[in-house]
Amino acid sequence: MTAPKRDTYTPESLLAVAVTVFNERGYDGTSMEHLSKAAGISKSSIYHHVTSKEELLRRAVSRALDGLFGILDEEPARVGRAVERLEYVTRRMVEVLIGELPYVTLLLRVRGNTDTERWALERRRDFDHRVSDLLKAAAADGEVRGDIEVRLATRLVFGMINSIVEWYRPDSRGSGDREVVDAVVRLVFEGLRRQP
Amino acid sequence: MTAPKRDTYTPESLLAVAVTVFNERGYDGTSMEHLSKAAGISKSSIYHHVTSKEELLRRAVSRALDGLFGILDEEPARVGRAVERLEYVTRRMVEVLIGELPYVTLLLRVRGNTDTERWALERRRDFDHRVSDLLKAAAADGEVRGDIEVRLATRLVFGMINSIVEWYRPDSRGSGDREVVDAVVRLVFEGLRRQP
Repeated sequence: MTAPKRDTYTPESLLAVAVTVFNERGYDGTSMEHLSKAAGISKSSIYHHVTSKEELLRRAVSRALDGLFGILDEEPARVGRAVERLEYVTRRMVEVLIGELPYVTLLLRVRGNTDTERWALERRRDFDHRVSDLLKAAAADGEVRGDIEVRLATRLVFGMINSIVEWYRPDSRGSGDREVVDAVVRLVFEGLRRQP
Repeated sequence: MTAPKRDTYTPESLLAVAVTVFNERGYDGTSMEHLSKAAGISKSSIYHHVTSKEELLRRAVSRALDGLFGILDEEPARVGRAVERLEYVTRRMVEVLIGELPYVTLLLRVRGNTDTERWALERRRDFDHRVSDLLKAAAADGEVRGDIEVRLATRLVFGMINSIVEWYRPDSRGSGDREVVDAVVRLVFEGLRRQP
């Protein structure tokens, strides 16, 4: 048995440990005991930082949600033609997903068993609707095809982007990020087929 | 407590019950006891049909895999230009996913803790490679864009298609199927942007 280490955690570094454990064991399957073991500090030390496991979940998914909603406040997401704003938002969604990988992964796995989970699902739906509205506006401008129903198109695009958490692992060089971001934007807006 | 019902299950109908329970509780979280309760027959009756829980898993994922590999044997997947074969396979993948929804859902959730799960993951990888090869051939023909790496494009397309299991629910009219299939094919091959 190793002696518990001195608690030198900041809110951020403790959150990083918690998110790793949540993603490994599932939020429901994680106890304060598991968190204490993973962090190498006592449960009471953890309670010095947070009041509950659910508070850690709320902080973690908030980080992912703040990253996503933050995109919508950026100027290129607010100003200009709808199709260009949509392309910007798509690109930034992939960047945020990759940049905040464990937090977004956790957000996408939330199931709705607690108030925090239900709140997170609600916020995800809000975000989806904001993107869906952008797609609708681009279709109304005639710049996005009109033969795919907007909600269905949004679901499929989110499906592609969100699936990245299943296989993406940051490489030490970071060179893969740009490639993934560009690939998604090309695929979503222009598709696979080479234009004649 | 209700009396156990007479065992009138066929291999197919028992499998359907098992797959529903596996998808609800997770394969690891399902015991023979759970299966017995869900089917309303005794455990020994279940053992009359199968030797183990793992045999049910193998049958269930085999059904999904047979559906997917079956596509590759169909004539339009074997004959013609690579890009047209790829489009056919994409369309049929969505059809098989929707037609065999619970079986494909289970296949996509397999994690690799047992021999059967590892075998299923291996077969999934084989299938992905077959589709990847088709994409490579279409790129070599110059009919698919060359600026997205083949493996990455395959992952993103599979990500979009597989995400359908997360939200698709068969509607009584069945009218939604065609719409989803067409949407995926349009999005994957032509993208969202309306061509000028």
